[in-house]
Amino acid sequence: MIIQLKKGISKPMLENIHFVLNEFKIKNNYVKTQVAEYLVCFSKNEFDIRKIGFIEGVEDVHSVTDDYKLVSKKWKLNNSAINLGNGIVYDAFNPIVIAGPCSVESEKQMELIVQHLVKSNIKIARGGVFKPRSSPYTFRGLGIDGLKMMYELCKAHDIKIVTEVMQVSQIEEMLPYVDVFQVGARNSQNFNLLDALGSIDKAVLLKRGISGTIDELLQSAEYVFSKGNEKVILCERGIRTFETAYRNTFDINAIQVLKEKSHLPVIADPSHGVGIRDHVSKLALASIVAGADGVIYEVHPSPEEALSDGQQTLNFEESNYLIKQIHSLQSFLKSN
Amino acid sequence: MIIQLKKGISKPMLENIHFVLNEFKIKNNYVKTQVAEYLVCFSKNEFDIRKIGFIEGVEDVHSVTDDYKLVSKKWKLNNSAINLGNGIVYDAFNPIVIAGPCSVESEKQMELIVQHLVKSNIKIARGGVFKPRSSPYTFRGLGIDGLKMMYELCKAHDIKIVTEVMQVSQIEEMLPYVDVFQVGARNSQNFNLLDALGSIDKAVLLKRGISGTIDELLQSAEYVFSKGNEKVILCERGIRTFETAYRNTFDINAIQVLKEKSHLPVIADPSHGVGIRDHVSKLALASIVAGADGVIYEVHPSPEEALSDGQQTLNFEESNYLIKQIHSLQSFLKSN
Amino acid sequence: MIIQLKKGISKPMLENIHFVLNEFKIKNNYVKTQVAEYLVCFSKNEFDIRKIGFIEGVEDVHSVTDDYKLVSKKWKLNNSAINLGNGIVYDAFNPIVIAGPCSVESEKQMELIVQHLVKSNIKIARGGVFKPRSSPYTFRGLGIDGLKMMYELCKAHDIKIVTEVMQVSQIEEMLPYVDVFQVGARNSQNFNLLDALGSIDKAVLLKRGISGTIDELLQSAEYVFSKGNEKVILCERGIRTFETAYRNTFDINAIQVLKEKSHLPVIADPSHGVGIRDHVSKLALASIVAGADGVIYEVHPSPEEALSDGQQTLNFEESNYLIKQIHSLQSFLKSN
Amino acid sequence: MIIQLKKGISKPMLENIHFVLNEFKIKNNYVKTQVAEYLVCFSKNEFDIRKIGFIEGVEDVHSVTDDYKLVSKKWKLNNSAINLGNGIVYDAFNPIVIAGPCSVESEKQMELIVQHLVKSNIKIARGGVFKPRSSPYTFRGLGIDGLKMMYELCKAHDIKIVTEVMQVSQIEEMLPYVDVFQVGARNSQNFNLLDALGSIDKAVLLKRGISGTIDELLQSAEYVFSKGNEKVILCERGIRTFETAYRNTFDINAIQVLKEKSHLPVIADPSHGVGIRDHVSKLALASIVAGADGVIYEVHPSPEEALSDGQQTLNFEESNYLIKQIHSLQSFLKSN
Repeated sequence: MIIQLKKGISKPMLENIHFVLNEFKIKNNYVKTQVAEYLVCFSKNEFDIRKIGFIEGVEDVHSVTDDYKLVSKKWKLNNSAINLGNGIVYDAFNPIVIAGPCSVESEKQMELIVQHLVKSNIKIARGGVFKPRSSPYTFRGLGIDGLKMMYELCKAHDIKIVTEVMQVSQIEEMLPYVDVFQVGARNSQNFNLLDALGSIDKAVLLKRGISGTIDELLQSAEYVFSKGNEKVILCERGIRTFETAYRNTFDINAIQVLKEKSHLPVIADPSHGVGIRDHVSKLALASIVAGADGVIYEVHPSPEEALSDGQQTLNFEESNYLIKQIHSLQSFLKSN
Repeated sequence: MIIQLKKGISKPMLENIHFVLNEFKIKNNYVKTQVAEYLVCFSKNEFDIRKIGFIEGVEDVHSVTDDYKLVSKKWKLNNSAINLGNGIVYDAFNPIVIAGPCSVESEKQMELIVQHLVKSNIKIARGGVFKPRSSPYTFRGLGIDGLKMMYELCKAHDIKIVTEVMQVSQIEEMLPYVDVFQVGARNSQNFNLLDALGSIDKAVLLKRGISGTIDELLQSAEYVFSKGNEKVILCERGIRTFETAYRNTFDINAIQVLKEKSHLPVIADPSHGVGIRDHVSKLALASIVAGADGVIYEVHPSPEEALSDGQQTLNFEESNYLIKQIHSLQSFLKSN
Repeated sequence: MIIQLKKGISKPMLENIHFVLNEFKIKNNYVKTQVAEYLVCFSKNEFDIRKIGFIEGVEDVHSVTDDYKLVSKKWKLNNSAINLGNGIVYDAFNPIVIAGPCSVESEKQMELIVQHLVKSNIKIARGGVFKPRSSPYTFRGLGIDGLKMMYELCKAHDIKIVTEVMQVSQIEEMLPYVDVFQVGARNSQNFNLLDALGSIDKAVLLKRGISGTIDELLQSAEYVFSKGNEKVILCERGIRTFETAYRNTFDINAIQVLKEKSHLPVIADPSHGVGIRDHVSKLALASIVAGADGVIYEVHPSPEEALSDGQQTLNFEESNYLIKQIHSLQSFLKSN
Repeated sequence: MIIQLKKGISKPMLENIHFVLNEFKIKNNYVKTQVAEYLVCFSKNEFDIRKIGFIEGVEDVHSVTDDYKLVSKKWKLNNSAINLGNGIVYDAFNPIVIAGPCSVESEKQMELIVQHLVKSNIKIARGGVFKPRSSPYTFRGLGIDGLKMMYELCKAHDIKIVTEVMQVSQIEEMLPYVDVFQVGARNSQNFNLLDALGSIDKAVLLKRGISGTIDELLQSAEYVFSKGNEKVILCERGIRTFETAYRNTFDINAIQVLKEKSHLPVIADPSHGVGIRDHVSKLALASIVAGADGVIYEVHPSPEEALSDGQQTLNFEESNYLIKQIHSLQSFLKSN
């Protein structure tokens, strides 16, 4: 059960609600986000939900039977929009494209990429500076200096930045330069990191775990939301299966099922999803047809020379062509 | 290596080719299909492929490094078309829709479904009469009488029939009434059945195994083709993964990868793929965007009362809406 | 619900039971095996099970809530024993070893193997003559002649034979030469084959499917049992997972869980289970500790030259060593 | 390639080695652990390994073709032993048992458990105080105070402590109270945490990821080792598969394969492995037969009342029985 509290609810009112809930033996968690205040309640007993609805200070009460609560669609039928500022609103009517390299490698590389984004009217850049790598001996990213460099280049064109954060201690130094904090697949159940991202006011792009279930992804989103941050974007990026013909198995089913179960935006990452450059563009388009609110993909001036993920990265020509196709597909879908 | 033989090659010519191949210690399999004659060759030694190309009776020679040979795109870049007669040609420019119930249940049910197909201009009907069921105590289909009844109803409207065959001994009695023999996921490596279907001149719709790899599906197709039947259609129908939020995990990656590796047509079965009615239509459309040559889905006058698979079956209204969307999507894709 | 019928129940008594069941709207399936007669019943209504227990001709009544019925441990707590004759009884106190080559290749090979079995006091030989192979171009076994040859060699030493049957039409010709019909992983849901094996009086060794669930394996066993054949042996042989470091992932959990859920014997196939020769023996021993009623493994005079599965096949020395370890482990387990 | 450096190698010697490596264009990583100094080298060129072996300051040179280097068995055939002090040495001849509750819940609970450990002569206790939980609303452990309480109780009986660390910032406060830092399955690719654990001198128990490959587990161990800490223990704890009959699929194959590929100790966690109390003990024994260097399992005074994981936790009686069986099995294995 979720109790939405009235805007500016007074302390005595809140105490009174707690008093009533205690009488009914209903455990509850107080949540205050950028947007509103809630009580997330758990009880083993049956009771009349209306009795709570009538208490002063209560805006609305919803029964939510899912294991996750605040991110569930059961209490909020409208899809959540996420405003990144400067006209970039992430909602169902404006699927948004995020593009950029796997890793930020050099100023020259990023200049070329930012030019490409500007030319293609892509308003959000991705680019990793802290890279999770299987082997300790491989390139692990340019770190905070790479991020600052990327920021300067993007700022000049009002391009927003999505980049991966790997641990709590990085958040503070990254904060001024990041618009969307990405949580990678390997950290999708790093609960301390999720807690910490719940206490800042920046959007969080949460990737599904390598073998993460739909339920686990939504519970991870619940961590962020319940700590106070409603700006969560879910991302399908392929799962691990028995099939070895592709790097991961992009799970298009997840897009629809996540949209059905949650009010949060859901985007697709076809680059990691299939991991094969030739198949990225069609998967991006298929994801939009399936209902994704956006796509994130990897692009590089010369994918063959990329320090990481080159085999799944588009070049500028392919990216341009994809963008055009996305736009005409969106027009088609709106008119049908 | 595949050697395409000249049309009407004489016996002495063929013997001469064998003689040369033996000299090079190249093992070979003679294959004669509806369309042509081939020698599928295997050798551990290196040799100059041109030496074979110059032998009399040889039309063309191709090096094919895949484990499967005749179904590979390496020797045949053009997509194969399958002609079911009456103007129904299965090729890349005419994605074809197959619809019908999971099980043929009654004459009344089939009359309604055939009416629906006619109205929606769907020219191929699916409908199971031999049903593989996990439990021996459940409904296992109406058998050959159900097929005959279905045939009479479809014939009147020139609708072609796809239905599942479960064992070799059923083929003969089914032959007059079936246009496309479906091999189910559980039989995708039933090699005796594949052998037998290779020796008839009807199309074969081969479903991917429940945990079948791309490679295994193509090898199963190779069984049919190498026994003499080129009319094979591949079908992605969802795989088994750790995720329990859906019945199967529809693997959209497979569509593109199969099209890349093989010249055979590839269709999508979103009904079994995700197993949830609300998600079938969008998956069907996404599959077409991803490059599928067609879709097969389940439709029933009242899915709630279906004897099997009701939870993933569309009703007539949903089916009508899907067909319209497919047509407008196809127009869009052709014009882009 | 399972109704055990009295031995030699008369036709009027049986009709009376049907009459009562019909009154209670209980659907039922009559099953007659080598051992007894049963009615397997299904009902959506609640009713007093004792009312049926009192009817003349009823030996016993059991509520079985599992999806599978006759193979469930819910109605038969004692483990089932399978008597192959000549002192070979397959039960919990006499774990039995089956060994032999992947494929029967030649008389010379089989002579050496039979000598090895005799010397090691192994009383059941395995050996494939109909081989399911992914590729149509590879060795598919010596067929019925290979089986006859194997039979002559084994008969002389009273060694029983386990071999794979791939389709219904093979059963009749194989029958005189086979003691245990093996159903391979790829055919574990070939329901027509299971039906047919239910109507003969030979033991059936049922391998778990490549991605078969515990429940599916028991349902497949139910097919055989419910058609009249109680002599079913279950076999864990590794499942398909994401891990590529081994051919399959031998699932030791399945042994205990199958023993808990079913009264049928359960054996382990570590050769296919892990697919790596060096690891076969320890897995065999671990399986016995976990409760397996026996093991089946591959042995060959020179595994490097085997026509199939050489990389997972023991040589004679390794096999001898394993047998000794199995015997001393069994002694240890009995005394602890 | 791994270069073992001479003990107390001088700075000029090291510089000289670097100089030679640079000449050969061999990239290298300098690693200094509690035990020794190494250079982990990577090169695309062929060169004569002996040329490096002859340089002053080089103890030994090994070619290691695995992706992981320092944890590979290719350069160190002897199994590594880990000494926890007080006579507890973790090696192949002294498989060690770790037992304790999923979560440290109360002083009373821990007193009872410590008594049980003392009585059963178990010298290492497990017990979680920082608990990773899918839902943000569930019990997340007693934290550092719980650990201190556990420490006081264990210290009195010289019992060592294994407990999970979830993030870098916890290490410092935990350090005085912990003998083995456990990295949980969800953090098995939390590379920052692995880096940090590489710079302390306490043992690290590294659990395999929920869908972690053998290779990934060894690479994660390489992170810890290459940052300076050789005391790494690997732990198989069940993987995620399609099977839903158990919580996880305990992968016994991994034990043997890890022992084959690495010199690090490998232990089994059958509690999480299968997740079903009745099956834990047999899996523990089977793991030892398969070659595990030890087992870790969950025990609680009354599992039914445990705050977490009760369904897979042994009670004292079961634990006592298991310990006795482990001891007699170990005697048996040594004498065979």
